[in-house]
Amino acid sequence: MKSLATLVAERRPVQAMATHSPLSAKLAEEAGFDALWASGFELSALLGLADVSLTTMTQHLEMLRAIAGQTSLPIVADIDTGFGNAVNVVHAIKEYERAGAACVVIEDKSFPKVTSLLSGGRQDLLRIEEFQGKLEAACAARSSDDFLVIARVEALIAGLGHDEALKRAAAYAEAGADALLIHSKQSTPAEIEAFIAAWNGDAPLILVPTAYPEMTVARMKATGKVGMVIWGNHSIRAMVAALQDVYRRILEDGGIQSVHQDIAPVTELFRLQDMDRVKEIESRYLR
Amino acid sequence: MKSLATLVAERRPVQAMATHSPLSAKLAEEAGFDALWASGFELSALLGLADVSLTTMTQHLEMLRAIAGQTSLPIVADIDTGFGNAVNVVHAIKEYERAGAACVVIEDKSFPKVTSLLSGGRQDLLRIEEFQGKLEAACAARSSDDFLVIARVEALIAGLGHDEALKRAAAYAEAGADALLIHSKQSTPAEIEAFIAAWNGDAPLILVPTAYPEMTVARMKATGKVGMVIWGNHSIRAMVAALQDVYRRILEDGGIQSVHQDIAPVTELFRLQDMDRVKEIESRYLR
Amino acid sequence: MKSLATLVAERRPVQAMATHSPLSAKLAEEAGFDALWASGFELSALLGLADVSLTTMTQHLEMLRAIAGQTSLPIVADIDTGFGNAVNVVHAIKEYERAGAACVVIEDKSFPKVTSLLSGGRQDLLRIEEFQGKLEAACAARSSDDFLVIARVEALIAGLGHDEALKRAAAYAEAGADALLIHSKQSTPAEIEAFIAAWNGDAPLILVPTAYPEMTVARMKATGKVGMVIWGNHSIRAMVAALQDVYRRILEDGGIQSVHQDIAPVTELFRLQDMDRVKEIESRYLR
Amino acid sequence: MKSLATLVAERRPVQAMATHSPLSAKLAEEAGFDALWASGFELSALLGLADVSLTTMTQHLEMLRAIAGQTSLPIVADIDTGFGNAVNVVHAIKEYERAGAACVVIEDKSFPKVTSLLSGGRQDLLRIEEFQGKLEAACAARSSDDFLVIARVEALIAGLGHDEALKRAAAYAEAGADALLIHSKQSTPAEIEAFIAAWNGDAPLILVPTAYPEMTVARMKATGKVGMVIWGNHSIRAMVAALQDVYRRILEDGGIQSVHQDIAPVTELFRLQDMDRVKEIESRYLR
Repeated sequence: MKSLATLVAERRPVQAMATHSPLSAKLAEEAGFDALWASGFELSALLGLADVSLTTMTQHLEMLRAIAGQTSLPIVADIDTGFGNAVNVVHAIKEYERAGAACVVIEDKSFPKVTSLLSGGRQDLLRIEEFQGKLEAACAARSSDDFLVIARVEALIAGLGHDEALKRAAAYAEAGADALLIHSKQSTPAEIEAFIAAWNGDAPLILVPTAYPEMTVARMKATGKVGMVIWGNHSIRAMVAALQDVYRRILEDGGIQSVHQDIAPVTELFRLQDMDRVKEIESRYLR
Repeated sequence: MKSLATLVAERRPVQAMATHSPLSAKLAEEAGFDALWASGFELSALLGLADVSLTTMTQHLEMLRAIAGQTSLPIVADIDTGFGNAVNVVHAIKEYERAGAACVVIEDKSFPKVTSLLSGGRQDLLRIEEFQGKLEAACAARSSDDFLVIARVEALIAGLGHDEALKRAAAYAEAGADALLIHSKQSTPAEIEAFIAAWNGDAPLILVPTAYPEMTVARMKATGKVGMVIWGNHSIRAMVAALQDVYRRILEDGGIQSVHQDIAPVTELFRLQDMDRVKEIESRYLR
Repeated sequence: MKSLATLVAERRPVQAMATHSPLSAKLAEEAGFDALWASGFELSALLGLADVSLTTMTQHLEMLRAIAGQTSLPIVADIDTGFGNAVNVVHAIKEYERAGAACVVIEDKSFPKVTSLLSGGRQDLLRIEEFQGKLEAACAARSSDDFLVIARVEALIAGLGHDEALKRAAAYAEAGADALLIHSKQSTPAEIEAFIAAWNGDAPLILVPTAYPEMTVARMKATGKVGMVIWGNHSIRAMVAALQDVYRRILEDGGIQSVHQDIAPVTELFRLQDMDRVKEIESRYLR
Repeated sequence: MKSLATLVAERRPVQAMATHSPLSAKLAEEAGFDALWASGFELSALLGLADVSLTTMTQHLEMLRAIAGQTSLPIVADIDTGFGNAVNVVHAIKEYERAGAACVVIEDKSFPKVTSLLSGGRQDLLRIEEFQGKLEAACAARSSDDFLVIARVEALIAGLGHDEALKRAAAYAEAGADALLIHSKQSTPAEIEAFIAAWNGDAPLILVPTAYPEMTVARMKATGKVGMVIWGNHSIRAMVAALQDVYRRILEDGGIQSVHQDIAPVTELFRLQDMDRVKEIESRYLR
């Protein structure tokens, strides 16, 4: 199997689906995605918490470790700001590598962060040198070179503009970042496409087109520079819509007599839980 | 607010929705359900595991505690067989009460269990006296009488028949169970309705009509004996169907340009995460 | 039983022993201490980690919750800087109160912190207004007024001097802190005694005399201003010395034939584990 | 570095020290032990719980994983009865291997178990065929042959006698066990030495001489059959004695003025927490 590094380098791009649980991860693998995005936003939302550094590294690692035990896809870990300074980053890299991640994405915001898509949220960025220190620490801390360190550039989100974004991207690549996640909250791909066009570094780019859904895979591929696209929060958003609908219907119907036909049957859950494997173990080893 | 005991006694019945996370719990509360079913099956499925005593009390308590911190609905804890014998039950009761549960449901199967709905699964039951001991231990271990101990009768599932089910239900009520969950895997309500008709005990009955969806709330209410209905796994099943659909469409569409309109918008997630409260704290206390 | 608030107000002072586990907590309660210090330093050390914000709130809460389940002493939670800004503090207060803490201590350093006793460590303090915001947020977030919010003043540790320490202590009391933990790393009590003498606020003072062991309980009591003394890390330090000694002896002796007589007998462990209660449950409820 | 399998085969024997935390594990490694015993008894005791299957696999794995991150010694995992039947064992093997264990020890008691050293405790054993099934399942489930599966024979503890113990040991070796832990609660080595003398299988034996401390390493080595000795609970017992002593003295002395010289200094804790490494990271990467 090709490593994530190889896949990203091919700039097809790799499609990584957001996940918040082994179940969603297994479904993403079955559907055909190439990688998993162990999303801080999805985990926060699942826990009913705002995505402002309230969930802990322990909670995120636990989710990631459970996912790694149930899928074979490479896992891209969203570690926000790295949980503090370079000392925290070194600790985090060791723990994420041990937990089964293939990659971490560290962003250049200050801790504690607020979610990037919130209008009006403050978005303080670290000084370039300071973030370079964190990236260098991350690269030095990994035990395998196959473990990717990706820098997330928040300059466009923070309203610092195109030039600052390019400058930061280059500085982060120089510090050792294996790829650059460039984030935008514009509702069209224009800002991102301008960045891609201007980017002449060697490192592949990574996009999270939540805000600009018209940025299709084909359009990314055409640039020849995008190594990965992350569908950043579509699992949890699909789940919310589905639960709201089903809950409303059950209460309106006064029962499950209608809704039970429109959701996955229990047998499909048994399949996903690998009950056949349980029966096989029982028949072979229970005496 | 009325206690769960009071609500169950009213035999309206209470509608409890299965949950596996604070997010699904919040959505169930918003939708209008009366209680939450902290489901072992949903937790197992979320973790990609078969529901055969693989998830631990620690994992279940952690889920329940997170839910208790985010909702005000009473939480009915599905503790399977009680994690072992009466000693384990005493420990469990203390931990579930501390974690914020309003109620536990203990079943009369042997540990380790297999899920009740699996055709062909072995279903060994405890001796009546043995299970009575566990129920008595549970009742003695609670610190508040408002904390309900519910006995789950698996005799129909195990194929032991109507009379054995009635005998066990009566024996469990005698041992102190506050209500009796009577489970069936028949595809129509006939078996359960026969049981309800024959039941002349004081304790309210609790149903989980997964297998016989024609058993509506109105039909239960008409019996005057059903204190609670548990919609046992419809959250996780709704989630599976939704994720399968959305994942397929994203891959087919080569992007999120279509799907993003059919799932919950990011702003709806922000609302569920209470971002307004975060902004309020920031504006009041960040200086 | 008197509340911790009442005890602290008596200025006897309350003696709080550092703990890192239910076992050490039970032993401290049996020995006769008044309260427990759920120490970040001891937890970090137990996990083999430096005390520089590497352990998470999840890990600390889990330790505290386990302790709260096994003792009846009030637990003083060492929450360092509060895990971030005022938003994190609000979240933390709710979680610590739920977990069974009687009190939190928040310090006025920047996140991530380094341990106060390290010579040469950087010790950046928050601006006074910024820390007041965190204290006000903490006080507003608690659900019970019996839950104490204690401000830890690091001005002496940071080398900012007597006057700055007094100024900060007063400002923190004004913001709502119920007591003030004033920390010093001088090897004699002189610096702290000068502070105590100069302090004319209403709020009780709290000391952690690790660095200046000559500060006895009697000496604190004589000031009439000290509400609590925290023996901050003596459990873990006692444990290290004992393990080093016993490990060396076993290897030197080529066995446990000598050492087994100098450590607690297995029966003493059974007593601490309350095996008699287990036997009682077994005899009463196992059938 | 030699694998644990190789070391055990040398029958020197390997000395494994009981541990309940990364700190005790690091101290054991520094002292010179060959391996670590991730003890269920020590974990239970640390949590203030009786050793009767109350702690969960989650809690034990978390301890083991933390230890694996801080030491390089092989870790022998005490998994009691394997948390249920063969299905649970298969799940456990996968999780322990992932967590960094080098080996598991599974015992032939029924779940839930009571601790072996308790006088008068019931000690039900599985049927031989049933336990063979669990061992075969364990061996088939491991992903590396270097991962050892050790069968713990409780026949002597259960009072079933010498012949039954030999018969079971042979049957477990036949089922694939890599070594046999033979347990005794006699206060002299006579029972165990008789077993060793009579054992003519190929598999190495493992001893836990808690109850018969006169069984020295030299005496075991002389038999040529003992692959490992486990010092099963001496860490937690040393800790209890030390804490009881230090707590009593602090209260009697009315302070730490005396005791602080007899415990590890804070600087020794800093060394164990590797503060020099933190300073190095700070000086290299903080900008």
